[in-house]
Amino acid sequence: MTRSDHPGTAPDAALALVDQGLNASLERLFALLRIPSVSTQPEHAGDCRRAAEFLRDELAALGLDAAVRDTPGLPIVVAHDRAATEGPHVLFYGHYDVQPVDPLALWTTDPFEPVLVDGPNGRQIVARGASDDKGQVMTFLEALRAIRAADGHYPLRISILLEGEEESGGPSLRPFLDANREELRADFALICDTGMLNGGVPAVTTMLRGMVGEEITIRGADRDLHSGMFGNAARNPIAVLADILSDLRDAEGRVTLPGFYDGVTPVDPAVKAAWERIGGLGDADLLGPVGLSVPAGEAGFSALEQVWTRPTCEINGITGGYTGKGFKTVLPAEASAKVSFRLVAGQDPERIRAAFRAHVEARIPADCSVAFHAHGGSRASALPAGFPPLAQALAALTAEWGKDAAVIGSGGSIPVVRELQDALGIESLLIGFGLDDDRIHSPNEKYDLESFHRGTRSWVRVLYGLASA
Amino acid sequence: MTRSDHPGTAPDAALALVDQGLNASLERLFALLRIPSVSTQPEHAGDCRRAAEFLRDELAALGLDAAVRDTPGLPIVVAHDRAATEGPHVLFYGHYDVQPVDPLALWTTDPFEPVLVDGPNGRQIVARGASDDKGQVMTFLEALRAIRAADGHYPLRISILLEGEEESGGPSLRPFLDANREELRADFALICDTGMLNGGVPAVTTMLRGMVGEEITIRGADRDLHSGMFGNAARNPIAVLADILSDLRDAEGRVTLPGFYDGVTPVDPAVKAAWERIGGLGDADLLGPVGLSVPAGEAGFSALEQVWTRPTCEINGITGGYTGKGFKTVLPAEASAKVSFRLVAGQDPERIRAAFRAHVEARIPADCSVAFHAHGGSRASALPAGFPPLAQALAALTAEWGKDAAVIGSGGSIPVVRELQDALGIESLLIGFGLDDDRIHSPNEKYDLESFHRGTRSWVRVLYGLASA
Repeated sequence: MTRSDHPGTAPDAALALVDQGLNASLERLFALLRIPSVSTQPEHAGDCRRAAEFLRDELAALGLDAAVRDTPGLPIVVAHDRAATEGPHVLFYGHYDVQPVDPLALWTTDPFEPVLVDGPNGRQIVARGASDDKGQVMTFLEALRAIRAADGHYPLRISILLEGEEESGGPSLRPFLDANREELRADFALICDTGMLNGGVPAVTTMLRGMVGEEITIRGADRDLHSGMFGNAARNPIAVLADILSDLRDAEGRVTLPGFYDGVTPVDPAVKAAWERIGGLGDADLLGPVGLSVPAGEAGFSALEQVWTRPTCEINGITGGYTGKGFKTVLPAEASAKVSFRLVAGQDPERIRAAFRAHVEARIPADCSVAFHAHGGSRASALPAGFPPLAQALAALTAEWGKDAAVIGSGGSIPVVRELQDALGIESLLIGFGLDDDRIHSPNEKYDLESFHRGTRSWVRVLYGLASA
Repeated sequence: MTRSDHPGTAPDAALALVDQGLNASLERLFALLRIPSVSTQPEHAGDCRRAAEFLRDELAALGLDAAVRDTPGLPIVVAHDRAATEGPHVLFYGHYDVQPVDPLALWTTDPFEPVLVDGPNGRQIVARGASDDKGQVMTFLEALRAIRAADGHYPLRISILLEGEEESGGPSLRPFLDANREELRADFALICDTGMLNGGVPAVTTMLRGMVGEEITIRGADRDLHSGMFGNAARNPIAVLADILSDLRDAEGRVTLPGFYDGVTPVDPAVKAAWERIGGLGDADLLGPVGLSVPAGEAGFSALEQVWTRPTCEINGITGGYTGKGFKTVLPAEASAKVSFRLVAGQDPERIRAAFRAHVEARIPADCSVAFHAHGGSRASALPAGFPPLAQALAALTAEWGKDAAVIGSGGSIPVVRELQDALGIESLLIGFGLDDDRIHSPNEKYDLESFHRGTRSWVRVLYGLASA
């Protein structure tokens, strides 16, 4: 059955309901944003469950059979439209957990008390998770609400999966997918955790980098020492760590791990040419909004190429010795760093983890030891060319935003794309409404009200579009 | 007037009173240790003043004219024996401030609730400041108490100066010395802030390293970024910092700053030979007690030579990005480190500070900036050969401990030695009873009860010895 069989299911009625219900939609989003569901901090485990329960209740109110499902880690919310029997079956994925808020002092408002503020592109919703990923998740739920209010039912078969360990690289999702393969299998997945291009150009993301996270702790003496009494003679773990980290890149900005670039292929020149036609993707466009101007990584690649198509290594955190106010002449017993690698298609996360550990171990001097702690690993993923729902999604987005929707890459990792492929054998359409200046993972995270409003309208159009295929 | 003129002033009576009063002496020390006078943390400014007032009251009880003297920073305690008119005039120096206590979790008892515990060398006093410097200061005060109880007066002219910014590299002492030059000038100074050799070998420290402290903060983007979205393309301040710090030493462990070793002379072979005769000063002796075995710094120097006679560079603290539990894929806006240089005779602190800043600035890439914050600077100092009171002090120490007192160096900096030279034109005798395993600046700092008891007895002998010259 297609849309043409049911003239009453045209998107116009649902789109009008989205517009009329915007304030009520915002209230529901704000209620979710007030729950500090920080998955990486164990003291927020209860808040994560509260967020899951909130979403279960919202999904039940949308006529879905919804449940909070326990895992060894944080719970997963699953919902199905039991009434639906026809149309393609889509599995929507999002995550209810958010990043930590530190440094708290840099927030201008309480990160868990959402506010609307004026911005260059109209009003903005400011809160931790406003964009990543609560605001994006709620665009989908509010689209369902409007469609149901307009038609009394959905134009295709809907299942929903909302996890709580996306920001922590937690291990619970994959076993859950494996254990519930029959229940969760769909024709393809819809994921709302990516962005548009600046200037209101809608986009479907088809290339995602993978990630390997590692934490290393270097230990020297069995206690903190006085650097005057022992400096020079006793090995300083901070200096060992600095050497290890400094050696990770060469003078050209290339990662030095042996075999790191094995399997990495240059981006298709035709794809590069299409990006140049879109415009607004130059180094200044990407770096200017955050106060930078010069691409910092591998020599010979634009900022966009580096972020979308090249693997990299970043130091995400470092600590050792005395870091308070003033000065303390300590020679510390240990120092540690968190390091992540972003991977592109062709790279094996576990080979890269092994190469990193070998790099570190080769640089541990006498009298020092190292402890490794793995923080997740995922392969990169790329949507196969000619995936049929892609064209329908692009057409729906183009209709909503009035600009040709683009096919793009993303520097971030969304491990679930690979996990859905591996566990359920399905591909994912990545459609999201975030913007580069959303400050996700940073203080004062925001989501443009336009992203929320037209994102909701976009999903209405995309769902009707996919149903009509 | 010399001791031989007054048979009643022999040290025996005072030494017996030290022994009899040990428990009461400990009670007074414990009361001082309970005051958390951490000078580097502004929230403890009131505690620092309380420690100063406590010491003023103790000195007044010893018959001295004592006062807490305000400075732009933390107060200085000054006391004089107004009754004395003869004998050499000595100025005793100590400090009442202590190091911060972090990491607090590694303390087995409250750092500001002193306890006596059993150790390999008898009982130990465990508390922050037990050794550095409250325990050492109280050996001198308790020696004065015993002498006064035995004789009713002191055998030489006593002045006392106790400051509160030694651990913070604070700026108040030097202007105070300059402003009170006439009041504070003495024949020489006595300083109790150093150690003995292991095995109960008493020592006078005649070589002290100087220090330059620097804090640098590297800034990149104007906000924290998502390392997936910006990694590679945006400069990572932690990586910049790692490169800067890694470049501070070459493969041979030598500091790479141009001119760093200018003016540094090799240690006198005769002095080295004397250290070898003492024994117990090998690499294993110095490093073994802290769980290490291999000297880490400049190739070709023993651990002892490195600490006593070679300049060095240490990283005392580093921080940047996410350092909490779990993982956060942040590319931080800034990263910072605290770095100190230990200097030997012949090196100019301000030239070395300038060379360090030039080293850093030469490594700041496009789109990054650096802010410098100076944390004190002092030249190294060395007691002139043949300083007359040295022989008297060595004889007194040898008598108390039953082992030949040694002339040694110290890796730590005691800037006041240089400041007393420059402001008052006087040399200092450095006599102290700390041990290498006292864990000063570390959790579970301790002072052997023997150090406290026989240290007090040592001062009784030293003061009578100096009076008899």
